Amino acid sequence: MAQVPLAVRLHRLLDPGGQGSTGAGWINRVLAASIVASAIVAVLETEDSVSSRAPLFFLWTERLFGAVFLAEYVARMIAVGEDPRYRGLGGRLRYAASPMALVDLVAVLPLFLGELVGDTQVVRLLRLFRLLRFSRLGPFSRAAAILLTTLRGRLPELLLSLLVALVVLIFSATLMYLIEGADQPAAFGSIPRAMWWAIATLTTVGYGDVYPVTALGRVLAGMTALAAIGLIAAPTGILATAFAEALRQHHAEPGGETAGAKPAE
Amino acid sequence: MAQVPLAVRLHRLLDPGGQGSTGAGWINRVLAASIVASAIVAVLETEDSVSSRAPLFFLWTERLFGAVFLAEYVARMIAVGEDPRYRGLGGRLRYAASPMALVDLVAVLPLFLGELVGDTQVVRLLRLFRLLRFSRLGPFSRAAAILLTTLRGRLPELLLSLLVALVVLIFSATLMYLIEGADQPAAFGSIPRAMWWAIATLTTVGYGDVYPVTALGRVLAGMTALAAIGLIAAPTGILATAFAEALRQHHAEPGGETAGAKPAE
Amino acid sequence: MAQVPLAVRLHRLLDPGGQGSTGAGWINRVLAASIVASAIVAVLETEDSVSSRAPLFFLWTERLFGAVFLAEYVARMIAVGEDPRYRGLGGRLRYAASPMALVDLVAVLPLFLGELVGDTQVVRLLRLFRLLRFSRLGPFSRAAAILLTTLRGRLPELLLSLLVALVVLIFSATLMYLIEGADQPAAFGSIPRAMWWAIATLTTVGYGDVYPVTALGRVLAGMTALAAIGLIAAPTGILATAFAEALRQHHAEPGGETAGAKPAE
Amino acid sequence: MAQVPLAVRLHRLLDPGGQGSTGAGWINRVLAASIVASAIVAVLETEDSVSSRAPLFFLWTERLFGAVFLAEYVARMIAVGEDPRYRGLGGRLRYAASPMALVDLVAVLPLFLGELVGDTQVVRLLRLFRLLRFSRLGPFSRAAAILLTTLRGRLPELLLSLLVALVVLIFSATLMYLIEGADQPAAFGSIPRAMWWAIATLTTVGYGDVYPVTALGRVLAGMTALAAIGLIAAPTGILATAFAEALRQHHAEPGGETAGAKPAE
Repeated sequence: MAQVPLAVRLHRLLDPGGQGSTGAGWINRVLAASIVASAIVAVLETEDSVSSRAPLFFLWTERLFGAVFLAEYVARMIAVGEDPRYRGLGGRLRYAASPMALVDLVAVLPLFLGELVGDTQVVRLLRLFRLLRFSRLGPFSRAAAILLTTLRGRLPELLLSLLVALVVLIFSATLMYLIEGADQPAAFGSIPRAMWWAIATLTTVGYGDVYPVTALGRVLAGMTALAAIGLIAAPTGILATAFAEALRQHHAEPGGETAGAKPAE
Repeated sequence: MAQVPLAVRLHRLLDPGGQGSTGAGWINRVLAASIVASAIVAVLETEDSVSSRAPLFFLWTERLFGAVFLAEYVARMIAVGEDPRYRGLGGRLRYAASPMALVDLVAVLPLFLGELVGDTQVVRLLRLFRLLRFSRLGPFSRAAAILLTTLRGRLPELLLSLLVALVVLIFSATLMYLIEGADQPAAFGSIPRAMWWAIATLTTVGYGDVYPVTALGRVLAGMTALAAIGLIAAPTGILATAFAEALRQHHAEPGGETAGAKPAE
Repeated sequence: MAQVPLAVRLHRLLDPGGQGSTGAGWINRVLAASIVASAIVAVLETEDSVSSRAPLFFLWTERLFGAVFLAEYVARMIAVGEDPRYRGLGGRLRYAASPMALVDLVAVLPLFLGELVGDTQVVRLLRLFRLLRFSRLGPFSRAAAILLTTLRGRLPELLLSLLVALVVLIFSATLMYLIEGADQPAAFGSIPRAMWWAIATLTTVGYGDVYPVTALGRVLAGMTALAAIGLIAAPTGILATAFAEALRQHHAEPGGETAGAKPAE
Repeated sequence: MAQVPLAVRLHRLLDPGGQGSTGAGWINRVLAASIVASAIVAVLETEDSVSSRAPLFFLWTERLFGAVFLAEYVARMIAVGEDPRYRGLGGRLRYAASPMALVDLVAVLPLFLGELVGDTQVVRLLRLFRLLRFSRLGPFSRAAAILLTTLRGRLPELLLSLLVALVVLIFSATLMYLIEGADQPAAFGSIPRAMWWAIATLTTVGYGDVYPVTALGRVLAGMTALAAIGLIAAPTGILATAFAEALRQHHAEPGGETAGAKPAE
């Protein structure tokens, strides 16, 4: 690799999706690991039986991740000047107002707020927003782009499937409201209430907290459950076709195999 | 667009599926939004905790939607004369007796009945029939036509899947009736009762209100649940194949891409 | 159609799958309807709240269907002599001992037993065996043959999927037995007991009568549920491929379209 | 078949995956049956109501299988010398330290431990490890290799699906924690707790032990259940595509049909 200025290298290291990126550098690996670790810690911290046992561990890991994300935020602000779109102070301010930079800022905020106002409920919730930084993970954002392109091509068919599912949902809920509304007012006393049963049935989740008890209601539930198979089969079939085409094109184009084979890097 | 008589333009605006349609006009957008809004209001109105809070809101939105659908009904009756099939008074009466026009009439009825006999249970139920007007939504009816054509081509295979599923349903219910009928008479004391368990298991909904308790019954339930995977996989595979072919033909034919890419308009 | 002897015509009418069959004759339609109606009656008769209301109806429909199936059995015994494989008395006896003829005989037996020993539990159970005659339904047996041929071609892959599912089943049940066996002895106190939970989870039925309560047990249950998606996706993918190939070949071969489009006749 | 030395034949008989294997010999069939039978017995033995009824049966079948696996272990140690990689004493020791040989050793251990220290809990658990020997079953390991090759080719896409599923899992659990954490602290009082609900919903298992009770929580649960369909459809579509390609290549290559048609031998 040719000798390049530090600012440019910093820019390349921090921008895994950029054209000049020389693969997944160690900085991005550390940042990706930090996001994952920060997410795990933020998830575990909400469980009192865990967080009360090691309060200092959570305090200091929080400070550590806060410092890492702060350093990244500052570095990004310096490096972004290399991008033709964000040159100069005005460009940097425009970058700071972009959704990605705001997500990064929210990831840094809990560090300062935690020190200033203590570990309040608000600070804890802000910490959870770091989960949004998952979208920054290099391989994830790259592979997700391929996935999204595939899905976008089938969006009309998928939306139609969703629309059909919603109509079936409303109709089955309406029928169940008419059939069992009087028998079980708490569960089916209105269409919105019956929709809770309908969505659990049409997605085959079937929590079992509400279910029909009359013969007619059970016949309707059985037919709704059969319709569920069709409603699930349609998007599955559409996605199977979309993936088959996307993968065929992906493997056919030059260099496609290499990019596809290393999404976890 | 060339200058055309008002009646013809009205006809074109109201008939989104017609050959002379100049895309989705603003009138059809307003009507589609009215159908969706009317459905949402009709669904919410059945929930007493919502409708009792703002009775005037529901009364006046009902009157508004009633007036909109009444205006549409009258406009359609005028415009349909442009259609060669429904010319003159006799043609208009024939149109008024068609299923689509009757659905439109039922959508208008609650307005008059609500004013005449008050907001009774019957009027409320009539209002729910407006959900049938979903089938009038331009993009929905067009995309649904493509979907239905695809499904119709695979109808024999899908019906066979359904038939196999029904036979497996009856057999598993019969066996469970023989095995656990004496142990749990309320749940498995007859084949129709055991079918409630069988349909919940074969569709993998699994409410969990009834389930076998004996060892033999559980072995049968396990085998039924495994059979369920096959019964679900068959229609999914058939639909996946059907969609793959339909989408390939759709994208190959001239103008197919445009029509397929804008079903939500 | 040329003039043919009565015995030959009887043979053709009763053998819808035969080469000489002139389509679905009215006799086979009546027999198919009788099988379906007989099955519905046999299913409903097990529900006391229904059968106690109209005991005479069930007695006489039973006698009617018994007479129909008896007439069919006798007619088949006469007609089968036209088949080169079953000529003469010896051939007819050989036919009478074939599985299909035995199923037919079991369908007739309840008529005589019901008259001789009354409507006992044994007679009722024998009546349920008529459900096996579903396999005689012309279109069902023909379309099922195509389906079975398709499945047989993918039998190794499907069996492997089943084998993998069984191994995952045993392993997850074993692990859950080790993790929660002491906490919930009734649910997970032995591997066979834990398998009841494992099969409900791996098929995503999820009755919810047993579920882990410890953190480690829930992690295992979550991983088992994720594995379930893969175990369900594999046979679905295999069947989708098999159907795609079968339907392509079916539509390509001469006359395939006609036969495929009328399986319900 | 040409005359070959006993040691070489022993090696061939015991190594069903080897190139010199002359098909599935009777020894491997006996061993495969022993592994399956041993697994069934080990599973049943954990159920006290079964094992307490026939303690002698379980004691002697355990001794029988122990002896069979011991004989196999010794025979393998002799035969492995024929393999160029494991010639001489050093080679045999290296083989003995390989994962496959260690699994075999663990299968033999319970025999000696059972005689020495009695049928303790530790010995019982060791017996369960014999389930790992499933991976030794000839056809299983061969067909599994084909399956694994297919899956490995789609590993990036499958991992991405899993990653998306995990992110959706964390987000839905986080949102449910924020919405219903205060209402149902036992079920949704922390994100890890809410993840138990989220995994049951996203895999459509739906045990029904925990579910939202507020209107907002039910809207979130409904959207999560709808997302579940997409998350399940993605791997199904990917696997369907992978199997379609694998089976096409498999049937195209010479001898592929024969190998694929006999995985159960």
